[in-house]
Amino acid sequence: MKDAKVRLYVDHPLGAGQPVPVARDQAHYLFGVMRLSEGAQVLLFNGQDGEWRAEVTQAGKRGGSLSCLDQTKPLQVPPDLWLVFAPIKKARTDFIVEKAAEMGAARIVPMQTEFTNSERIRQDRLQAHAVEAAEQCGGTYVPEVSDLVKFDRLLAVWPEDRHILFCDEAEVGSVTAQLSADLRGKPWAIFIGPEGGFSDRERARLKDLPNAHVISLGPRILRADTAAVAAMSLWQHALGDWT
Amino acid sequence: MKDAKVRLYVDHPLGAGQPVPVARDQAHYLFGVMRLSEGAQVLLFNGQDGEWRAEVTQAGKRGGSLSCLDQTKPLQVPPDLWLVFAPIKKARTDFIVEKAAEMGAARIVPMQTEFTNSERIRQDRLQAHAVEAAEQCGGTYVPEVSDLVKFDRLLAVWPEDRHILFCDEAEVGSVTAQLSADLRGKPWAIFIGPEGGFSDRERARLKDLPNAHVISLGPRILRADTAAVAAMSLWQHALGDWT
Repeated sequence: MKDAKVRLYVDHPLGAGQPVPVARDQAHYLFGVMRLSEGAQVLLFNGQDGEWRAEVTQAGKRGGSLSCLDQTKPLQVPPDLWLVFAPIKKARTDFIVEKAAEMGAARIVPMQTEFTNSERIRQDRLQAHAVEAAEQCGGTYVPEVSDLVKFDRLLAVWPEDRHILFCDEAEVGSVTAQLSADLRGKPWAIFIGPEGGFSDRERARLKDLPNAHVISLGPRILRADTAAVAAMSLWQHALGDWT
Repeated sequence: MKDAKVRLYVDHPLGAGQPVPVARDQAHYLFGVMRLSEGAQVLLFNGQDGEWRAEVTQAGKRGGSLSCLDQTKPLQVPPDLWLVFAPIKKARTDFIVEKAAEMGAARIVPMQTEFTNSERIRQDRLQAHAVEAAEQCGGTYVPEVSDLVKFDRLLAVWPEDRHILFCDEAEVGSVTAQLSADLRGKPWAIFIGPEGGFSDRERARLKDLPNAHVISLGPRILRADTAAVAAMSLWQHALGDWT
């Protein structure tokens, strides 16, 4: 197991020679489930110090200790893209958060719209999904999941310079024109509506924003989770870190 | 309920005045769950005759009858794009099929690779998922889900003129160059590998094909289901029916 196949997020500083304590639940996973013993190697990241190879220095049922060896990846902060979405059914909401972390969103903002069923979210559970997705996808950054915010309140304090990409079946803008290269490097947000879409009032409000960009995602109606991945793909390809 | 909110796939010809029998399970859904009665309207499609508005003419617990009124959409056949993928865990395989139908794949091909765990699939269950996704997304076409085929057997009979888009972290081709406009209208397939990716041998085999196009989907490792949606988004935008 010198290959370090385990990749773990820890809420602890990382650096050469830095000892990292292992809490009970992670000890269960590392030493129980994965059966790592002293001398085994793992990869650690904390969202700030990049990725580090670390060695197990103490393995116990209720805890243990790791020691950082060397940095295997620098911190790679994704482009300044927020994914703003209306929570849907539990499994699909989890999916959207997972996908947003994989696709490289810098921040994930659950939003309550007129047609949103959910009036609350479990922010801690969604944040844990984002961590797990980062562990899985090899990212060194974990997007922050915000608390649920109402559409009107979100737009009332919307930063003027943050561009909005929003998908509307009714009005079709060319992706190439809307995501033109001179908008690279600016702050952006992708808005994904709930099942049933945004209300007419919300749609008008979004379109009135000076930095709103409307595109189409084809002739079929995409589910919210599909639309989130599709819109982020086009954005990452045009303006993000895919090229 | 004159609004026809129910949209149903039926395996029956559709046309003006055409009666359509309702089988037992659909009768349960239409007349039990959705509580439709005689005179209520539904939308029907069969993958061949477009979408039709139909009226309930007989509603019973064990069956019933519909009658087609008028066509509400012509048949919209998606571009000639296959999604070829290696089945993964059950829920994510279901997801890939659902997403492929939503995103407008013409055919869905489950493929067994060296690193594929699944040695069998339930073709009928996956086909039902494709039907359900088509009902949901407003499509009038249902992609056929093939039986599981081995990688080597698939490539042995691969049609020479069918282009292959395949995503590889190791070698990066520009999306814009690989999906250039002169390749629009050609037959295509997107290949998505299993968790752990294609083997070196498989990767070399794919790259050796005259019509293989290799692109990158960014610096993070995407799960197979995310990669499928991401690759289809870029393809549909560059060469498909999204523009």
